[in-house]
Amino acid sequence: MEQKKILNISVDCVVFGFDTITKSLNVLLIKRYLEKNKEVLVDDYVLTGYHVYENETLDQTATRVLEELTGLKNQYKKQFKAFGDPDRLMNEKDLVWIKNEEFNLRTITIAYYFLLKTDDVDLNKNKYNAKWFPVSNLPEVGFDHKNIILEAYEDLKVKCLSEPIIFKLLPDKFTINEVQDLYQSILCIEIDNRNFRRKLINKKYIIALDEKQVGVSKKPAQLYMFSKDIYDKMFQKNYLISI
Amino acid sequence: MEQKKILNISVDCVVFGFDTITKSLNVLLIKRYLEKNKEVLVDDYVLTGYHVYENETLDQTATRVLEELTGLKNQYKKQFKAFGDPDRLMNEKDLVWIKNEEFNLRTITIAYYFLLKTDDVDLNKNKYNAKWFPVSNLPEVGFDHKNIILEAYEDLKVKCLSEPIIFKLLPDKFTINEVQDLYQSILCIEIDNRNFRRKLINKKYIIALDEKQVGVSKKPAQLYMFSKDIYDKMFQKNYLISI
Repeated sequence: MEQKKILNISVDCVVFGFDTITKSLNVLLIKRYLEKNKEVLVDDYVLTGYHVYENETLDQTATRVLEELTGLKNQYKKQFKAFGDPDRLMNEKDLVWIKNEEFNLRTITIAYYFLLKTDDVDLNKNKYNAKWFPVSNLPEVGFDHKNIILEAYEDLKVKCLSEPIIFKLLPDKFTINEVQDLYQSILCIEIDNRNFRRKLINKKYIIALDEKQVGVSKKPAQLYMFSKDIYDKMFQKNYLISI
Repeated sequence: MEQKKILNISVDCVVFGFDTITKSLNVLLIKRYLEKNKEVLVDDYVLTGYHVYENETLDQTATRVLEELTGLKNQYKKQFKAFGDPDRLMNEKDLVWIKNEEFNLRTITIAYYFLLKTDDVDLNKNKYNAKWFPVSNLPEVGFDHKNIILEAYEDLKVKCLSEPIIFKLLPDKFTINEVQDLYQSILCIEIDNRNFRRKLINKKYIIALDEKQVGVSKKPAQLYMFSKDIYDKMFQKNYLISI
């Protein structure tokens, strides 16, 4: 049975992927292409998104969209903002596209972002020509999606300063350097090595393991794990006012 | 000219007001009342909200709704979440109400919260029978608005730990005790007095003034101000990782 779409409400997904090799924070975009009589009318990239179905929640739409694009479920997901300006889809290419797709002229989109590792996505069999782009070096992006990406990125930066979501991008056992590299990549800052290490290893929810790195050419570093249990207990008991 | 409403999209406003006398964090609710043949069908409270007009942004809808309710503009405002479950307006009273008002059965609402002082609102001339209720002691609330209020409150608590929005609820010149009282009221916690004081007066953006309280019966306390300029510069230059 075909599901009924709500024509003026969509969900768009900013899929952030961390590339552990290049240490780059990337966004997954899909190709938008339209030609008529051999003339290229639209050729750029957009976020992946879809209309909300009559019988599904907004979260379900987001999960469905991500799964169709990447095959993944159960990733860290955050609904971060609704975009609904009357003129959000009003440039020339967007109007051509909307007409061709029979989209509603005024559509409100509920934007989500996801956080995962680029490694976890297999793009080879992807039917949308999806491709990773560094957040710092986006291609031409259609609709108001560049704005949505940048707002998602700002939200992510603030969030990873106050919540331990960064550990979702690390292996279960990690070195302090890996945590620092990740923060540096996401926040685009240099962090003082010694201060950071001291601060981090003093946290009760960062647990030193009886293990060191294996298979590295340099001196193997101590491995740590993050305990969500301990973090949650501390957060409940003892709010940290950090303004 | 009458403006055209988008029937399935609304904005709801959680208006948080801090009562500086009772030190209570309150929410402004309006009366929802319907009777037929002398039988009371609906009698409870709801958030104030309205449909989005075809030609306005979501932010404009929120500002319009707040102004109509309180007469106030330019208050701290945050769009915090869209609520769009298919069954969000499905209890019996809500169905009676929806039918009477000719509402759309599935409406997605973009929820905002506002932060102000109860003192700043004059409820005497209010045509909606608006009333303040402590967040900790809500009356019977219609639709899914209780859930929306509680989610807004959670967001507010997290936000005031990581951003200096609390100063919007204080006079321009304040004592450290007033800041502590405010945190304690919003977060519902006891804060250790000496630690808090030391932490706060060490912040570069908390400026000690050459003034003390006047007109108090006890020993007058030192007054301080918050410098947004300094805060912004520090935040730009030096992200504080506080997980």
